[in-house]
Amino acid sequence: MSDPATNETARVEAFSDGVFAIAITLLILEIKVPPSAAHDGLLVGLKNLWPSYLAYVASFATIGVMWLNHHRLFTLIVKNDDRIIAFNLLLLLPISWMPFPTALLAEHLHGPDSVIAGVVYAGSFFFIAIIFNLMWRYALKVQAVAAHADAQGITRQYALGPVMYAALVGAAFISGTVVLIVSALYAIYFALPPRLWRKA
Amino acid sequence: MSDPATNETARVEAFSDGVFAIAITLLILEIKVPPSAAHDGLLVGLKNLWPSYLAYVASFATIGVMWLNHHRLFTLIVKNDDRIIAFNLLLLLPISWMPFPTALLAEHLHGPDSVIAGVVYAGSFFFIAIIFNLMWRYALKVQAVAAHADAQGITRQYALGPVMYAALVGAAFISGTVVLIVSALYAIYFALPPRLWRKA
Amino acid sequence: MSDPATNETARVEAFSDGVFAIAITLLILEIKVPPSAAHDGLLVGLKNLWPSYLAYVASFATIGVMWLNHHRLFTLIVKNDDRIIAFNLLLLLPISWMPFPTALLAEHLHGPDSVIAGVVYAGSFFFIAIIFNLMWRYALKVQAVAAHADAQGITRQYALGPVMYAALVGAAFISGTVVLIVSALYAIYFALPPRLWRKA
Amino acid sequence: MSDPATNETARVEAFSDGVFAIAITLLILEIKVPPSAAHDGLLVGLKNLWPSYLAYVASFATIGVMWLNHHRLFTLIVKNDDRIIAFNLLLLLPISWMPFPTALLAEHLHGPDSVIAGVVYAGSFFFIAIIFNLMWRYALKVQAVAAHADAQGITRQYALGPVMYAALVGAAFISGTVVLIVSALYAIYFALPPRLWRKA
Repeated sequence: MSDPATNETARVEAFSDGVFAIAITLLILEIKVPPSAAHDGLLVGLKNLWPSYLAYVASFATIGVMWLNHHRLFTLIVKNDDRIIAFNLLLLLPISWMPFPTALLAEHLHGPDSVIAGVVYAGSFFFIAIIFNLMWRYALKVQAVAAHADAQGITRQYALGPVMYAALVGAAFISGTVVLIVSALYAIYFALPPRLWRKA
Repeated sequence: MSDPATNETARVEAFSDGVFAIAITLLILEIKVPPSAAHDGLLVGLKNLWPSYLAYVASFATIGVMWLNHHRLFTLIVKNDDRIIAFNLLLLLPISWMPFPTALLAEHLHGPDSVIAGVVYAGSFFFIAIIFNLMWRYALKVQAVAAHADAQGITRQYALGPVMYAALVGAAFISGTVVLIVSALYAIYFALPPRLWRKA
Repeated sequence: MSDPATNETARVEAFSDGVFAIAITLLILEIKVPPSAAHDGLLVGLKNLWPSYLAYVASFATIGVMWLNHHRLFTLIVKNDDRIIAFNLLLLLPISWMPFPTALLAEHLHGPDSVIAGVVYAGSFFFIAIIFNLMWRYALKVQAVAAHADAQGITRQYALGPVMYAALVGAAFISGTVVLIVSALYAIYFALPPRLWRKA
Repeated sequence: MSDPATNETARVEAFSDGVFAIAITLLILEIKVPPSAAHDGLLVGLKNLWPSYLAYVASFATIGVMWLNHHRLFTLIVKNDDRIIAFNLLLLLPISWMPFPTALLAEHLHGPDSVIAGVVYAGSFFFIAIIFNLMWRYALKVQAVAAHADAQGITRQYALGPVMYAALVGAAFISGTVVLIVSALYAIYFALPPRLWRKA
């Protein structure tokens, strides 16, 4: 506790780690065990849950990779000010919200309401992508970011984020299943190391 | 583990971070996905949930900013004694309680029981504001607080807290919606940096 | 990560902090919001929940103070071996179990099944008290405890634990309400600083 | 935050600790309190829950010991690269998934669907065992592991894991109860210190 500034960064990360870890683990509570009295048998009951499994994997991958990016940012962000903490809370709000649209899209993956559920799901990620970009650009602007070759790579890698997730909102008009699969693929894009975006 | 005192402070913060992070993330579990068999369609079902969204944002903002203030206090509190730990547990009790009044007010935002639900919601925050003040004044009294220009600012900023939340209890007699909107605005007040309250 | 032993202790504490924080925060999920369609009105509905509030406070106080004691032990335990970690897992098992007997006793506080629910509740704490004593005595035996005046005090303070919680099991035959109130009082006993038990 | 690499390892462990702690504590939410209106009395209701208790203990022991092994690995893994973090996310996915098969097997421990539930439960552990082995072998291959006598022991101890859990999948065809008991015994095997597997 000798250096308040270091301690501050550490607790912001610890609190954020907690929120990410809980949001990612609460996803499982939305998958309900088929009751033992179901006349179709358990195998059918388990098969019918496939939208839930797919939504679980897509959201787990996305939140997990968002944690990874949060971690990358805060390795480079060496100074905290009150606005970075405020941005961080604004980022954690939609992260902890994700179990809701995940369950929503799993429940409504088929049928007439699939488009609405898909728009809510993709729109939540779009909102997160915006906040990530705003927080990062703010940190760069106030020179809270350590000089590191990755910093430039991150800026370029993230720049595509809002566009990608806006396209995902559009994909909801095709199919909820497509939204989930594309989300999982997007997670791979953001898991790639920022050094790939460094200038040659 | 060389210095037991430092370690003690660190674990108090780690445990508190956990409780704050879980309480803030459990809020989402209270928002139930509209079932796919609803005859009104999903759009109507999602619109009818607006009290839940509003309560979610108001409680998230308030608990998030309370975490921020907890973090500010424990950056300045450099010595722990048994009573500070006891105060801290007394503070975490109503924090972890908040998912209940949040769901209560969302469920009863309209109709005859809105006042009762609003009083319980605002009263919970009032109780937290009292404990925050008592804990901080105790820490000052036993000289557990590092000499820092912010300490005085915090004392002034917090002094208004119990009055503000008492007024919020009164606002419950007007409307539950007003309680939620004012709560979110209060969160901005407590998010402001304590240095603004320093004497000129 | 230079010293594996220190790191080991830190992660045991971090994981334990997580389990304590989650168990204490999950308690609130067992209190269900009275539905808005109830004909008695919300005030009656909220009053009828008093067994849940009492059980919430009693369990929160007990788990909170058990966390405090866990924290005191691991401030003094400076060496970890595999058996201390095994004891620790054996301790966390009934800690994370507590939301169940808490909800059980709240649901059955009145009526013919109150005794059974009270025995399960008190018996869970009795089991935890036994493990706390075994873990502490083992740590003393293998000389994993730092030389500190508190160590002797803890041994004496804890010695009464199993007796106290065995008596609590007996109290279940009187009344579930008595079990909850006595549990909260016991929490105060174990919150007292171990130095009070030092020899004169 | 002076050394980004150290910080990176610390946050990977903190996030993982969170996921393990939450997954292990969420298990209790799957055990439902018998309602007070049940005509059989609470004692019968509590007795009928024994599959839930057994599943709770088996899953708690397994996840707890998997945490312990995760902790052992990351004490030895001194360098992180992006693929180790990716492996780690792939490991946390089935860990946070475990509350579902635990509740599934408890609900279907008897009757015709016991085999299916047992296969899902044992199969989840089998998948985890594979990932543990792949992550460890990858870390060895890229020389991210500190030179330590335990490293060789871990390799040998883990080598049996996939075989053991494949056998557990087979045991599901005998009985779900056998699956749960054997799981708990397997946990003891993996709790044993790796030094027992060192070459003489």
